[in-house]
Amino acid sequence: MGRLTGGDPSLLRRINSAVVLHALRGAVSPTLTDLTRTTGLSRPTVEGVTEGLIEAGLVVETVPEEGGARRQGRPARRFRFRAEAGHLLGVEIGSHRIAALLSGLDGRIIGAGSRDVSETACADERLERVRLLVADVLRRAGVARSSLRAVGVGSPGIVEADGTVRLGTALPGWTGLALGERLRRSFRCPVLVENDANAAAVAEHWKGAATESDDIVFVLAGLSPGAGSLIGGRLHRGYGGAAGEIGALHLLGREVTPEKLLSTTDEPLHPLDEQAVADVFALARQGDPRAQEAVERFIQRLVHDVAALVLALDPELVVVGGWAAGLDGVLDPLRDELSRYCLRPPRVALSLLGEAAVATGALRLALDHVEEQLFAVETTVTARR
Amino acid sequence: MGRLTGGDPSLLRRINSAVVLHALRGAVSPTLTDLTRTTGLSRPTVEGVTEGLIEAGLVVETVPEEGGARRQGRPARRFRFRAEAGHLLGVEIGSHRIAALLSGLDGRIIGAGSRDVSETACADERLERVRLLVADVLRRAGVARSSLRAVGVGSPGIVEADGTVRLGTALPGWTGLALGERLRRSFRCPVLVENDANAAAVAEHWKGAATESDDIVFVLAGLSPGAGSLIGGRLHRGYGGAAGEIGALHLLGREVTPEKLLSTTDEPLHPLDEQAVADVFALARQGDPRAQEAVERFIQRLVHDVAALVLALDPELVVVGGWAAGLDGVLDPLRDELSRYCLRPPRVALSLLGEAAVATGALRLALDHVEEQLFAVETTVTARR
Repeated sequence: MGRLTGGDPSLLRRINSAVVLHALRGAVSPTLTDLTRTTGLSRPTVEGVTEGLIEAGLVVETVPEEGGARRQGRPARRFRFRAEAGHLLGVEIGSHRIAALLSGLDGRIIGAGSRDVSETACADERLERVRLLVADVLRRAGVARSSLRAVGVGSPGIVEADGTVRLGTALPGWTGLALGERLRRSFRCPVLVENDANAAAVAEHWKGAATESDDIVFVLAGLSPGAGSLIGGRLHRGYGGAAGEIGALHLLGREVTPEKLLSTTDEPLHPLDEQAVADVFALARQGDPRAQEAVERFIQRLVHDVAALVLALDPELVVVGGWAAGLDGVLDPLRDELSRYCLRPPRVALSLLGEAAVATGALRLALDHVEEQLFAVETTVTARR
Repeated sequence: MGRLTGGDPSLLRRINSAVVLHALRGAVSPTLTDLTRTTGLSRPTVEGVTEGLIEAGLVVETVPEEGGARRQGRPARRFRFRAEAGHLLGVEIGSHRIAALLSGLDGRIIGAGSRDVSETACADERLERVRLLVADVLRRAGVARSSLRAVGVGSPGIVEADGTVRLGTALPGWTGLALGERLRRSFRCPVLVENDANAAAVAEHWKGAATESDDIVFVLAGLSPGAGSLIGGRLHRGYGGAAGEIGALHLLGREVTPEKLLSTTDEPLHPLDEQAVADVFALARQGDPRAQEAVERFIQRLVHDVAALVLALDPELVVVGGWAAGLDGVLDPLRDELSRYCLRPPRVALSLLGEAAVATGALRLALDHVEEQLFAVETTVTARR
C-alpha cells in the first residue's frame, strides 16, 4: 500500500504546475496576480510554472481587448488553458448500436455520431463500423486524429486491464477478443477499454443522475444485466474486472433468466432479441395480461438482483438504466423492496443519460486518463506490518 | 476528490520522520549510517529526525554490548523503536463471549483474556463485563491504562462512524446504543468501534487466511450472517456502514432464514440459540438424516449468499468463518457453485483465526489508527470537473 517517498526534488515542481494549471482551467483568462492569489504560490513560482505550461502548449497568453485598460499603460498579461491543445474520444460498442463522442481537454462535447449495427455482426465487421464512425466524427469536427490524447471505449463483457475481453456473450466473437490491441492499431494515443455498465456508472456520476453522490450502483437492466459501481467516487472493477456481473444471479437457486421471465408463451425469447422484449413491454402497457405478468416477473427479478448488490455494497444511490429506464413503474417496487430488505435503503433514480450513458462514461474515462497526467500528483507514505 | 496542496513547509519534515521511523522499526538497532543508507536521506536529516523521535519517546539509543567493537574506540550509536512507548487493545463483544487482546506499538500480543456472557445479558451488563475483562488483562500484563494509545472494538450490527450501533438485532438492547460513547468513558484514548465481520476480514488479512490478498470477502456464517470485505487492502464499509449485511438476502424471494433451514422439526430454532445449531451439526455428523438435510439446506443458502457477494464485489479470495469454519464439507459445494455461476470464481478458504478473528481485527484497527499518526503522511493533488 503506497510507496515510501523521501524528498523527491521534482515533486514540488510537479505539484506547483498542477496547481497552477488547475487554477488556470478554473478561471477566465486570469492574470499572474490572480493565479498567485488563488494558488497561494509565490509570484516567481507562478511565473516560472506558467512559462513552462506555455512552452508545453497547454496555456496561451490571451490578447488584451481594445479599450479601457489599454490607455492606462501596459495591461497585465492574461492567460487561458488551451482546451484545444488535445482531444478525447468516448466510444460505445453495443449489440445494436455504435456511438462516439468527441471533446477537447475540457471535456466539452464538440462532436458526436452513431451507427446501427446488426446484433449478428462479427467482431471484424463491428470494429470496421467503429473505425468508419470515428473517422466521420473527426472529419465533421475538423479535428486531426493526431490531436487525440486518449480514447475511451465502453463494451459489454468482462474486460481485462489490457483491454482484452475475457468474457462477452452479448456480442458475436467477443469472448477472448484483444479489443484494446485491435483498436490501438487505429490510434497513436492510449485506448482504454471498460465494461459498459462501469462506463455508464462513471457517466451518471459525471453529468447524470448521480452527480451528487460518490457511492453509487448503476444497474444496466437488459437480457444480460450488469452493474457498475463507484466507491468513494472511484470505479470498483473488482479483482478480475468482473464486479457487478450479476447476470448469473438469475441462475442461482431457480433457473430464471430474463428471456424466460419475459416470455408470454412457453418458449423463452431469444437472448439477444431486444425487439421481442420491446414488444412485450408495449403489450403490457396496452393492458395485455400475459405481457403484464411477464413484465411483473422481470421487475421482481430485477429487484432481487439490485437488492443483492445493495446488500453487498451499501451504496448511497442506485441508478437504473437500460430497459428499466423505459419501464413505467420499476422505481416504486424497487424502492418498496429495498426498504423492506435493506437495513439502509439507498435512494433510487432512473438514468438521466439513457442511450448516451456508455459513450459519455467512456469519454470521461479518457479525460480522467489525460487529467491524471496533466493535474494529478500523488505521494503517499504508509507503513503497514 | 483529494485536496489541492501547495508546498507545505512541514510536509517534507513529516515525510522524513515517517521514513526514518519506518526504517527504525524494520531494522535491528540500526546505526545512523544504516538509517542513512536505508532511507536515502542525508546524514544530518537522519540525525535531526532521530533526535526528534527520541524526544518524542518513540526511539531510544541502545546500550552497546561489552566486547569487540568497544575496544576499537567509541562504537557507532545504535537506536531502536520503542514498541513499549504505547499499547493497544482489541476487544470483541459477542452474543455469548467477550474477548480482549493487548499489544505494544509493534502489534505483538502481550496479553489476552475472554469471558462468557449470556446471550440475554442487557447492554449495561455486557459493557460491565467488558470493563472487568479489560481491567484484568491490563493488570495481568502490568500495563497502565494511561499507556493505551487506541482501543478497537468489534461488535455485531451496523455501526455508525461515531460508534453508535444503528442496528444490532443479535444483542439485547444493542440497536441505538451509543457504544463508542459508552466505552470512551473507560478510556482516555480513541475508541474505534467496527462491525464484527469487518473486523474479522481485517484480521484474516493481517495474520490469517488472507495475508496474500488485498481483495477479499470474509463471510461470518451464523444465524444472522454477515460479511466484511477489503478492496485494495482497505475495509469497504459502504456508504452507511451496512456493506455485507447479507442476512436480508434470506428474506428475498422465499422466506428462508437459517433458523428455519436448520430446524429438524416443523418449528424454527430460536434465532440466537447457537447451542441448538451445534446440536444439529453434531447430529448431522453422526449421520442423522433429518439433521443432514437441514445442514444441506443451510449450506445451499450460504452458497447463495456468498455467490451474491462475489458477483457484486469480484474478490480474489473468499474466507469463510463463523459456524461454517466448523462445518465439514462447506468448502467443496461452495467452490462448485461459485465456479458454476461466477464468471471469475475466487479462491475459497476457511478462517485461520476462528474465535480470535474479531478481537484480532479490532486490535489491527487500533494499530492502524496509531500507525496513521506515527507513519502516514499523505498529500494528493487531483483536479476533477
